[in-house]
Amino acid sequence: MKISLARRVVAEFFGTAFLVAAVIGSGVMGERLANGNVALALLANTIATGATLVALIFAFGQVSGAHFNPVVTIADALERGLAWKETPHYLIGQILGGIGGSIIAHLMFGLPLISFSRHARTGLPQMFSEFVATFGLVSVIWGCSRLRSNAVPFAVGAYITAAYWFTASTSFANPAVTIARCLSDTFAGIRPTDVPGFVVAQFLGGIAATFLFRWLVPNLQVRAKEVLLAHDSDG
Amino acid sequence: MKISLARRVVAEFFGTAFLVAAVIGSGVMGERLANGNVALALLANTIATGATLVALIFAFGQVSGAHFNPVVTIADALERGLAWKETPHYLIGQILGGIGGSIIAHLMFGLPLISFSRHARTGLPQMFSEFVATFGLVSVIWGCSRLRSNAVPFAVGAYITAAYWFTASTSFANPAVTIARCLSDTFAGIRPTDVPGFVVAQFLGGIAATFLFRWLVPNLQVRAKEVLLAHDSDG
Amino acid sequence: MKISLARRVVAEFFGTAFLVAAVIGSGVMGERLANGNVALALLANTIATGATLVALIFAFGQVSGAHFNPVVTIADALERGLAWKETPHYLIGQILGGIGGSIIAHLMFGLPLISFSRHARTGLPQMFSEFVATFGLVSVIWGCSRLRSNAVPFAVGAYITAAYWFTASTSFANPAVTIARCLSDTFAGIRPTDVPGFVVAQFLGGIAATFLFRWLVPNLQVRAKEVLLAHDSDG
Amino acid sequence: MKISLARRVVAEFFGTAFLVAAVIGSGVMGERLANGNVALALLANTIATGATLVALIFAFGQVSGAHFNPVVTIADALERGLAWKETPHYLIGQILGGIGGSIIAHLMFGLPLISFSRHARTGLPQMFSEFVATFGLVSVIWGCSRLRSNAVPFAVGAYITAAYWFTASTSFANPAVTIARCLSDTFAGIRPTDVPGFVVAQFLGGIAATFLFRWLVPNLQVRAKEVLLAHDSDG
Repeated sequence: MKISLARRVVAEFFGTAFLVAAVIGSGVMGERLANGNVALALLANTIATGATLVALIFAFGQVSGAHFNPVVTIADALERGLAWKETPHYLIGQILGGIGGSIIAHLMFGLPLISFSRHARTGLPQMFSEFVATFGLVSVIWGCSRLRSNAVPFAVGAYITAAYWFTASTSFANPAVTIARCLSDTFAGIRPTDVPGFVVAQFLGGIAATFLFRWLVPNLQVRAKEVLLAHDSDG
Repeated sequence: MKISLARRVVAEFFGTAFLVAAVIGSGVMGERLANGNVALALLANTIATGATLVALIFAFGQVSGAHFNPVVTIADALERGLAWKETPHYLIGQILGGIGGSIIAHLMFGLPLISFSRHARTGLPQMFSEFVATFGLVSVIWGCSRLRSNAVPFAVGAYITAAYWFTASTSFANPAVTIARCLSDTFAGIRPTDVPGFVVAQFLGGIAATFLFRWLVPNLQVRAKEVLLAHDSDG
Repeated sequence: MKISLARRVVAEFFGTAFLVAAVIGSGVMGERLANGNVALALLANTIATGATLVALIFAFGQVSGAHFNPVVTIADALERGLAWKETPHYLIGQILGGIGGSIIAHLMFGLPLISFSRHARTGLPQMFSEFVATFGLVSVIWGCSRLRSNAVPFAVGAYITAAYWFTASTSFANPAVTIARCLSDTFAGIRPTDVPGFVVAQFLGGIAATFLFRWLVPNLQVRAKEVLLAHDSDG
Repeated sequence: MKISLARRVVAEFFGTAFLVAAVIGSGVMGERLANGNVALALLANTIATGATLVALIFAFGQVSGAHFNPVVTIADALERGLAWKETPHYLIGQILGGIGGSIIAHLMFGLPLISFSRHARTGLPQMFSEFVATFGLVSVIWGCSRLRSNAVPFAVGAYITAAYWFTASTSFANPAVTIARCLSDTFAGIRPTDVPGFVVAQFLGGIAATFLFRWLVPNLQVRAKEVLLAHDSDG
């Protein structure tokens, strides 16, 4: 069944908004309650983010493919899962959704609608971490391409749960989420000046993984339309 | 196969009772053991609640649809999944089940059967949190409507696990559970005077999500009978 | 395909041994590392136990049905899933397995092979907790009887994860495990004199749940052979 | 469909690299943030490792079978799932991948590329723990042989999550990972001199479990090609 582009973009908006609200909101809650124990705050942040991804990919996957992430959308377009002409709509939905999610989180916790983060996240190890994080994320997504699509919510949720801890950058791995997080001077924030480095590293990681899996799974393009769940094109 | 209304209402009673016993009981246990570290107590409370939902939706879903939640029941009736004339029976089963669960938790922990909570949960951020929490919960449920129903226990369990942390109100998202929690002067309690605001915000959130998904998934009504698992109507 | 009784009893032995080794071992490890924070030790104990159950039910379910629990075996026999004449073999396999698991845990942690626990767990709230815990466990198992059996490992693992926190007794819910835990003077232990009360409460809870679900799910007996996974009878 | 040996070995390389990066990286992050609370650091390490396994087995399982572990590869060859002549390629891919993962983790956290661990892990209880840990791991894998293969990622991820806590050695259970971890003087490290004892115990445990399941599941060899997911042979 065809799903209109408008519906899919609205799904990307709401999904990305909820994802960012979960990342930022659980960071605020974790930090408030953890009495200065950063490991405990990050654990709360991790569990909330991973679990949110499971729920959101089940919820919106059948509508838009549940990308919520410009790197995933571009990778999908590279493999012809999504038409290039629809790609900008997806990206705009994701970026606006991310910003909306940041505002929603702040409203829930009684904070200013927007505040630029002062949390420095810079240096080569941080950027290499984002390369690895996004390489892994896109690998996991393409790796599920030969399974039935119900594996994706669990695989992605589990991956991000883990990557929060095994990368030095806590695995943003998502340009729309990175932009949204620079608008929040809270636990999950990132200084605006550190955003470009993160975004570049994320795209490089995602594209590298796409090329690896193009070789590993020769019929990846045929399957691309299935792996990111249902996102039938209008075009 | 048809399942009688009596059986379904009893299932809603037991399911909601177990859900509330899990929420209140794990709050008591968490607070007792956490040496004043609220993050740790809430983490225990979170994990117990999310895991309980997975188990209970699998256990009772095939009997009653495993709503355990008046907002879900009303949303289901709006989409014609449940007959309106059966709705009051569901709501009564859920509310009585919730109260029963509160008493069961107190009995297990050697507390007075009922004690009104003094835990203040008020203000606009709290109510907006409940709107967001329930909007998300109902979105996740309707979002699974195009998947096979086995996704619902995981999606809902994961969602509530996350929402405990990303909302300022720890995501009650359920009027029957909210009422039951005002009868418990423990970690998970809520002051009786704060209940109406929570309940109104919950219904508004749930109805808003239902309208969003009515547009996002055009054939939602056809699928409504499946998504909330098996609850074949007598009528 | 028929699986011989000998194979099934050996599977029950190994499965129960691993379950008890996980409960006791993770309790020792948790207590050693948690610097006196009981909530943290119990959280480790909880996660290890729940995850072990998921793994073990997948591993041994196709051989013996993965009962690992005399209450489950008796409930299954009541519903004619298991022949009564095979029941004693199951119980013996489970009890010996539990004792073996206790010894294995002690060997791994360099403790005496067996030491009677001095951990008092007594009083009505504790026994009522065991009644509720086992009532819930057996409800979850029978509740999955109308689903494909792959739900059981997740539903049971999630249930026990939750019940550790929402019951005052940390949810033993298993006579074979209770007996094994009285042989371990560690975090997870129980005083031998407290074992009978626990076991009686567990059987009462399990039988009550079986009668409830016999009414809730009228064709439960037909399905009993499937729900506890594959345990084809020789008889 | 046939997948070339080169592709499968590359998949083993990347999968093992990510697994080791997750084990070591999350150990570093956990220790840095936990303020000396070892239970909390190990909990982070545990959750990251278990979740990584779920994601990686979904990602690479359809390419190489997602062994990432010489014991699993040898066990699979014993059951004729993998041709013996392909076995050395798998082992080399795993060992090099593990070393690569260690280096990747160090790069992400700004540490020296390689540093020999000084973390002593020796004595009979530690070695017996590794025997038990690997016996359990291989049991879980073979136990899933009669289920559809989608159970394997969850069963293995859950098993390792648990085994971190219920074995005294934190369950390395993998010779390639053990070798890689001796190259990291961090939380997850192991002294090079302690590696041989661990590796011997791991192989003994894995082979013992294979013989047990050869008896428990008589048609195991027929199913061996399916259980470790898709790894069709060229030969």
